[in-house]
Amino acid sequence: MAVTKRSCENLRDALRLPPGEPVDLAAYGTRTTPGAPGGKKPARQDATRMGKRLARLQERLWAAGTAGDRRRVLLVLQGMDTSGKGGTVKHVIGHLNPSGCRIQAFKAPSEEERRHDFLWRVRGALPMPGEIGIFDRSHYEDLLIARVRRLVVPAEIGSRYGLVNDFERSLAEDGVTVIKCFLHLSYEEQRRRLLRRLDRPDKHWKFDPADIDERTLWPAYREAYELALERCAAPYAPWYVVPADRKWYRNWAISRLLLEHLEELDPQYPKGDFDVAECRERLLAQPPG
Amino acid sequence: MAVTKRSCENLRDALRLPPGEPVDLAAYGTRTTPGAPGGKKPARQDATRMGKRLARLQERLWAAGTAGDRRRVLLVLQGMDTSGKGGTVKHVIGHLNPSGCRIQAFKAPSEEERRHDFLWRVRGALPMPGEIGIFDRSHYEDLLIARVRRLVVPAEIGSRYGLVNDFERSLAEDGVTVIKCFLHLSYEEQRRRLLRRLDRPDKHWKFDPADIDERTLWPAYREAYELALERCAAPYAPWYVVPADRKWYRNWAISRLLLEHLEELDPQYPKGDFDVAECRERLLAQPPG
Repeated sequence: MAVTKRSCENLRDALRLPPGEPVDLAAYGTRTTPGAPGGKKPARQDATRMGKRLARLQERLWAAGTAGDRRRVLLVLQGMDTSGKGGTVKHVIGHLNPSGCRIQAFKAPSEEERRHDFLWRVRGALPMPGEIGIFDRSHYEDLLIARVRRLVVPAEIGSRYGLVNDFERSLAEDGVTVIKCFLHLSYEEQRRRLLRRLDRPDKHWKFDPADIDERTLWPAYREAYELALERCAAPYAPWYVVPADRKWYRNWAISRLLLEHLEELDPQYPKGDFDVAECRERLLAQPPG
Repeated sequence: MAVTKRSCENLRDALRLPPGEPVDLAAYGTRTTPGAPGGKKPARQDATRMGKRLARLQERLWAAGTAGDRRRVLLVLQGMDTSGKGGTVKHVIGHLNPSGCRIQAFKAPSEEERRHDFLWRVRGALPMPGEIGIFDRSHYEDLLIARVRRLVVPAEIGSRYGLVNDFERSLAEDGVTVIKCFLHLSYEEQRRRLLRRLDRPDKHWKFDPADIDERTLWPAYREAYELALERCAAPYAPWYVVPADRKWYRNWAISRLLLEHLEELDPQYPKGDFDVAECRERLLAQPPG
């Protein structure tokens, strides 16, 4: 994944998984910083600058949505515990106007959710036209933990890849730009992050001792991710592998991916269908209050 | 509403409507700036500083919520068109972590919503424990536009004040801090803001010629607001009258009101119920990946 200056202009090409090819996550760096404009400081400054551009594009997307443009964006965040899904929402999505964001964190399904098909709860959380939707975990958990923990029979998992592809294709056809980011964290960095949480009492609420045991399943999760990434990387809903050991790079890269997609969408303020001069006259003619 | 240095430390007392008294909105300034630390520039700087404190308190509220603390906040924004409800979400709520915010804008009710009682859609949008909910318009529209436009018979409106009070008392008893802000805008400033929207093609999407006609109902809306504020200003769910002709003051004041409430709630990071040393050992004992 050597990244030249040129590919820095298109981070999507640098991070996108090629559809239909076997995935070996060991071949992808977790501490690499493809395309980044230097180290931590310039990347943070660039992310702040991009945040302002993102907010302007978001307003245009929203405005277009009020006039019938059905386009919207869905950012799917997946990754192991501590890989930074929540941090991405805080630091990247935090630059946007919260009115236009529809954020959903998916936990273990509730009893009601389990009574429906696995895509039901996801359908209910999709962004409306003009919105930017963010999934902190997603329907992919039903391919990942469901497989690792054998929550359903293997044949059922097998059929889900196709259902996910059909679902995401239908989203794309309905005007949803689907951007799926796998936050690629190393086993060692996860250990460091868990230790840091233990060091800080104000982080204890994020810590669950069960997360330590879950690490013994790391190889099984990696395999489940590889399968899901391989089978569900589609041209209409690509997977991006985002090196996530460095938080500043993760924030920069996801800002950049969002920006490239939004710039390509290039939403426009709708033209008013009213007579500006007549409206102005009418307003000025109204008596004082 | 003379504001001394002292009351600046407690903006709630300066802006809170006394419960149970007749309300004459003409007695409240729309361009005044009670409690503000100087003019536009220092107020903006102070609002940015408060934004950081708000974000920290929000994280504590959220963290406490993960450990069973049921407390949450509901900010209700009401005001005439262009009074800055959306701007408040963008500039004040924009400082918070979007994950912990549940924002709902209420438009004219859908057919499904009309089939239920008027509080039904509001109940479905309430903040969960640990969250900060924001209503851009709210159940108060069912006391305001419903009255002005005679959407329901007067007796029905009459009964709604009591239903709203019962509803808000039940929220307070369930741990919801209800903060209701009336963005107090002058008729003249609304005209200026509508004219400004006409001047800027990138603001035309926010403009609806019907808003001009709606201004002829200004006195009726004012009266409806006065009644709603008078009958639904309760100790458990106070109304704050926020002068809204100056956007910088509005943002400062609402930041300040939120901050005072959150500081009073003083949510705490929950203590972990695990053995830190044992967890650390277990993590360090795991073999490298």
